[in-house]
Formats: sequence, C-alpha cells, structure tokens
Amino acid sequence: MKIRFINARLLTMDKNENVTFGELEVTDNHISYVGEERKNVAIKCDREIDCQGNVLMPGFKNAHTHSAMTFLRSFADDLPLEDWLHKAVFPAEAHLKKGDEYHLSKVAIAEYLTSGITAAFDMYYNPLETARAASDSGFRMVCLGTVTSFRESVDDMVSAYRVINSSKNGLVTYRLGFHSIYTTTREILQELSKAAHSLKTPIFTHTSETEVEVKNSLEKNNLTPPAYIESLGLYDYGGGGFHCVHMQDEDFEIFKRHKLYVVTNPSSNTKLASGIPEIQRMIDENIPVAIGTDGPASGNCLDFFREMFLVTGLGKLRTKDASAVKATEVIKMATVNGALAMGLDDADVLAVNKKADIIMIDLQQPNMQPINNIVDNIVYSGSKQNVKMTMINGKILYEDNKFFLDESIEQIYQKAQEITDRIKRDMRHD
Amino acid sequence: MKIRFINARLLTMDKNENVTFGELEVTDNHISYVGEERKNVAIKCDREIDCQGNVLMPGFKNAHTHSAMTFLRSFADDLPLEDWLHKAVFPAEAHLKKGDEYHLSKVAIAEYLTSGITAAFDMYYNPLETARAASDSGFRMVCLGTVTSFRESVDDMVSAYRVINSSKNGLVTYRLGFHSIYTTTREILQELSKAAHSLKTPIFTHTSETEVEVKNSLEKNNLTPPAYIESLGLYDYGGGGFHCVHMQDEDFEIFKRHKLYVVTNPSSNTKLASGIPEIQRMIDENIPVAIGTDGPASGNCLDFFREMFLVTGLGKLRTKDASAVKATEVIKMATVNGALAMGLDDADVLAVNKKADIIMIDLQQPNMQPINNIVDNIVYSGSKQNVKMTMINGKILYEDNKFFLDESIEQIYQKAQEITDRIKRDMRHD
Repeated sequence: MKIRFINARLLTMDKNENVTFGELEVTDNHISYVGEERKNVAIKCDREIDCQGNVLMPGFKNAHTHSAMTFLRSFADDLPLEDWLHKAVFPAEAHLKKGDEYHLSKVAIAEYLTSGITAAFDMYYNPLETARAASDSGFRMVCLGTVTSFRESVDDMVSAYRVINSSKNGLVTYRLGFHSIYTTTREILQELSKAAHSLKTPIFTHTSETEVEVKNSLEKNNLTPPAYIESLGLYDYGGGGFHCVHMQDEDFEIFKRHKLYVVTNPSSNTKLASGIPEIQRMIDENIPVAIGTDGPASGNCLDFFREMFLVTGLGKLRTKDASAVKATEVIKMATVNGALAMGLDDADVLAVNKKADIIMIDLQQPNMQPINNIVDNIVYSGSKQNVKMTMINGKILYEDNKFFLDESIEQIYQKAQEITDRIKRDMRHD
Repeated sequence: MKIRFINARLLTMDKNENVTFGELEVTDNHISYVGEERKNVAIKCDREIDCQGNVLMPGFKNAHTHSAMTFLRSFADDLPLEDWLHKAVFPAEAHLKKGDEYHLSKVAIAEYLTSGITAAFDMYYNPLETARAASDSGFRMVCLGTVTSFRESVDDMVSAYRVINSSKNGLVTYRLGFHSIYTTTREILQELSKAAHSLKTPIFTHTSETEVEVKNSLEKNNLTPPAYIESLGLYDYGGGGFHCVHMQDEDFEIFKRHKLYVVTNPSSNTKLASGIPEIQRMIDENIPVAIGTDGPASGNCLDFFREMFLVTGLGKLRTKDASAVKATEVIKMATVNGALAMGLDDADVLAVNKKADIIMIDLQQPNMQPINNIVDNIVYSGSKQNVKMTMINGKILYEDNKFFLDESIEQIYQKAQEITDRIKRDMRHD
C-alpha cells in the first residue's frame, strides 16, 4: 500500500522547525520518501493526496493521559481537589466493570484523532483493555502500569509487560510505573524497583503535582518526591515524572542526573488549581519536557492545541516574560520530546523509514490566515478544527471530520453513554 | 422568512443555565418561538432544521477585540511586550492604507463565525471600514472609538458616532472610547468627557492591563487608572474597562459605583505575560464580567472556547481553588454579560422577540461524549470543531464548515494575504 502526498508544506521536525514545500510518500506503515517534489517522475501509488499547501507534520504525542476516564468528563467540575477525588472520582471508579475500559477508551481515541494525537502514554487500571481498544482502532498506545496499594500489583504489571510487549501488531507497548508515592507503600515500590532492574526499564509516575504532595513527602520521608523515588533506585533506568509542578532545586538536579523527562499537563494543573511549573527553567537546564492532556476527568477535553497554548502561556505568566517558552520549543515538546519520553524513537519525526504517524494541518481556515509564521500559527492559534487528517502506522484513521475505525463513531458514543449511565445509577445506591 | 429548529437541546440563558429539550423558530431577524416541542401542530416554514439533540444557545459576544489586526497574527510572537509593541505592532500599523481594515476585518469575522461569536465589540482605527465589513458580511459589530494623542480625534469619533448609529441595517452600532490613559492626553480626555456627557453615552478603554500602566498612573496622576478616568467624569454614563488585570481595592469600588463592566481577555494577558485578574472577586462583588479575545496580534486566534477555559482556569489558579469561577458563571459572561456590556440588550438570550443570534453546538463529537453536563462540556471541553452553525440576525452565515458571506472565503484570505505581504515589503524599506 502506497500513499503519496503532494503539494505539501513539510514541518518534518527532523533537525529543525523549518517549513519547506515538497512531498511525502508512505509505504505500508512507514515513510518511504520525504523532501522536494519529484517532478516529472512517474510514481505508482494507491492513492495520491493533494495537500493544497496544507502542512504535514508528525502527530502529537500525548505523553500523559488516562484514556478510559471519559465517563468522568464534566462529571464533577468546580469542586475543591479533595472533594473531586474522594467524593466523585474514586466512588465512580469503584463501579467500573471488566470491559468498560475498552469502550470508554475508544471515545478518547476518537478524540485524540480529532486533535492530531497519534500516540498516547496511558495510565489506568486494566491496561489490557486499553491496549485492546488501541489495537482494534489502529491507535498507537504506550500503556503504563499503575500499581497502588489498593489496585494492581507488581506481579500483574510484569505479566502485562510480557503479554503486551510480545504482541505483534507493533501498535501497543507497555512500561512500568506506579500511581504516586502517596498511594503506594514503600514495600511495593521496593518490589517495583526490583522488577525495573530485572527488566532494565524506565519508571514514570505522578510527581510533585501539588504542594500538599511535596509537603507530605518532606514530612514523612524527609525527602522531596523525586528524591524519595531516586532513593529507591526507581530512576536507575531513566523514566520521568508527570506534572512536576512543584519542583525544588534538588529535583532539577535529580532529573538531570538520570536524564528524566518532565511531562507537563497544563490544562489539568490549571483546572485543578495545582499551580504553574517552571517550564522555561527546564528548557534552560536541558531537561526534556513532553506534554500530556491528563485524563478527561481532570481537564475534560483531550485537546493538544489547548495544551500547547497553555505550556507557553503559563510559562510566560510564571516568568512575567512574554518571550519565555517559545513556540519552537513547544512544537518540539509536542512531537519529538513526547515520542522519546514514550520510547517511540521510530515515530518522532518525518524521515525515511520512520513510522508513518502523520497529521495534516488545514491552513485554509480563518484562524491560520493570513500566513505569517506556521509554527506560531499552530501553537498559538491552532484548534481541532485545523486537523484535516490523522494517519497512524500508515493508515488514515480520521480525515475531513470522518472516522475510519473498526466500529462506527455512533456505536462508540452509545456504548460509553450506557456505561456512564449505569455507573451513575449504581452510585445512587451506594 | 421562517426557519424552524426541531429536536433541539435549548440553553436559552434566559433566567438560568438549564438545558431543556424543545424547538425554536426564527422569523426574519428575530426569535418567534422557543420552548417545548409543538407536537401535532402544522407549522409552515421555509426551512426546517433537525438539530438531532444538538444545543441551540445564544451566540458568544466577543466584548473586546481589534478585528483588523489579523495581518499581525503570528507576526511577532515570543517578544518582550515593549519590543512587540514598538518594534513590531506600531511600525507595521504605520503602513496600513485606507481600505485595508475592511479586508483584514473580514478574516476576523470569518473566524468569529467558526467560534460561535455572533457579535464583537471592536476597537480599531478607521471604524467605518470595520463597520462596512460587518454590514457586508451580515455580522453584528459594535465599533468603539479609539482616540489617542496621535490618531483619530474626538471630532472624528462624534462624526463616526452619528454616521454609524444612523445606519439602518441594525447590525452595526458605535460607542465612544479611547485607547488608554497612557496614549491620550488629559486635554483630549476632557474633550471626550464633554462629548460623552452631550451624547449621554458610556465610555470603554484599556484599563489596568499591566503593572507598568498602574505604576505610571500612580506616579503621574497620583491616581489608579480607574480613579483617574473617574476624575475626568468619563464614567458618568457607565461603560467599563478592558483587561482590568491589576485592579486595586478602590478600583473595585469605582466599578461598583458606576456599574461598570469588566471585559477580561485571558489569552492576551497570558501570552503577553500581563498577569491574572481577580475574576472570582469580581463575581463575589457583583461586578459584571464579559469576555473578549483581544486582537489576533495579541492572542493570535479568536477562539471563545479558549477564552472561556482560561477565564475559569486562571481564576482557579489565582485563588488556588478548583471551585472558583464556575462554568455557569463563565457561560453567562460569554453570552448575557457580553451582550449587556455592548448594549445589545435585544441579543442576549434566546427568548421571543430577541434578535436571532444563535449558534448550534455539535454534541456528536468525541470531546462532548459521553454527556454528563452540557454547560461544563461547552466551557471545559468545547472547541471550534463543535460549532455546527452560526446565525446572526436570522441569517445563517456558517454551517457545517461552510461560510455564507458576500465574498468567497478564498477571496477573503487572498486579499488579506496581499495586504499583509505588501505591509511586510514596505516595512523592509523603513
């Protein structure tokens, strides 16, 4: 199967953030040509797509999310954080049944496609269900273990690690992680550290998301959250932290020492009033930053354009400097850094032999006109409306507002609604 | 001309923010029925639109913008505020020629339609050109005088006031204002105050946008910006302020005393690192807050969904309280408060005899599924992608991604690009 894209603006993200004119060819699941237009050359292909000057770029990498939490979208907003978590999220999650995560994740996958997201780093219970939803949809997913003291176990995770990583479709992988230091005992973390050493694998977790988390860690362990995690050997094969809003000076040193990734989640940190991280400082200190939407229970939507604007906007507010966190940095975080954080080194940029995880950005919308600077347009002005096409692993899953999935979008909505209504009914009997 | 919308969810914003099922009828430019479905009643109409459960609501009111600044979209980002203004914006504006504002505003109008914005409170040079763009497009525009010490004069404004407010199409009105206290001399403001008293009209201006503005006002006038404006009698017929980021205690009293509107512009304040206003305090003190995008030179896009999320999100960050600035407050600001701030009392809600300025929000998109709370969905998860239809004054100007304007969208883009390219060429010769 060969698809040729002609008359494209190419934002390859390979080496720089320049935009050039040219063409791109996809053969099966990878990029087989990208560069100047091959004029007067006869090229056989199954489909030729005239981009009409629109932009081809690597898909966005959503480096932290909880896909199945779509059932909690707009379910309990405008509550103080503790009430939200203990009176809404946890009681609702207690009613999830086996198989629910499959259907609920599919809504998120559809939304990722509308936002130009071609891969997600997903952290939720029952990752095998999420993995199955991704496989069936053709979506690229990196599932992350979510051990806590009350759900999953290290053994469950090692088992999921083996099952998912040995699957042959090449779309879904699995990595080890844990929910957070405040939901997981030291004993479990020691066990996890052993597993990580034995599998030589990086570890990711929610890290320094709130002031309370840092305060409690200092009180209990006399260590910041990253220092505590480091002390258990959990960073010995790298990894990183989600959120990283309240980082102390020594935490920056720990992240540099272990080459860890920060995954920032600005919508969630904004909506839950967690705070504003020091993104410009991370850039200055060469700590790689990736971006995540967090789950739809926190920020409600899974919209990478909103996240990108917030990464730079909040960075500017925090430093009181309109030149902080430049658009060129943000677009790198949204694509290359996300891919590297997730272990998707073969889907980071548009280059020959890379996986064909490609989106087309529609410039023929008023929010992109007139054209002065395309990267700035995408970061500061972009919207889901500008996602004209989303291709993953060489397959077009979304184009011109239509989905090409294994089920109809109506069916996906209906199943998710049924599950959500059932959970709300069950909660009334609690 | 009669259009009937059936199978709708109605978010009328009339008295409350509840959503009910029903139908709505538009006759010529106004709403002639809204309420429960009229079953078994034969109703003659020119077009019947099946909403399929999608939401009808009042269009968003963009209560502060500079429409014609589309030529500066993504033109000079990531610069410190002073460089941005003095090295990019002002030098570029110096090359605007008569008629440019007409074409440049049309791009903004198209973008408003994609964002569900049905009226804008526009502040820019040559308002007659912007007014003409609005009239020709069928867009509702309230133009605001922008007197400064170097451009326009009070006489120009009084003349524009008479010309525009006597036009018969009912789409465009004109109000008096000035750019800011730091660009307008005391003498001009005194002259403006006389004009406002003579016309008995409210006054709006950029107010306490930056720390520097407040500091300079205190140094120069020994008064905060609102106190200085009040001292000149400029609030005697009401009005309000744009931005209002750095308000002192006494400013809150001034706003209450004169029943002034705050128009918040969170994208712009974020991107230019101006700061975060005290929105929850304004709500608590019953100061009406409306929302504006500011111009596309500041925040790049004209996206009311981004603004709505930021109004609440920044409000939560500022107070460190996830329950601050609730979605129900934000949806009111975006519709009713904006309309009242702009003097559009007849286009604020969906009710019989109100102007038919109506949008349809598409719930059949993954970011709205499953459905738990529609107002929360719109405020926290909405996107331009959800705007299925925008009707102004009874005419559908945008529907299913298509524009119905007096010129083709391609022509609008092309003219704006030509002007932008010409200005950039001219700047190279400066």
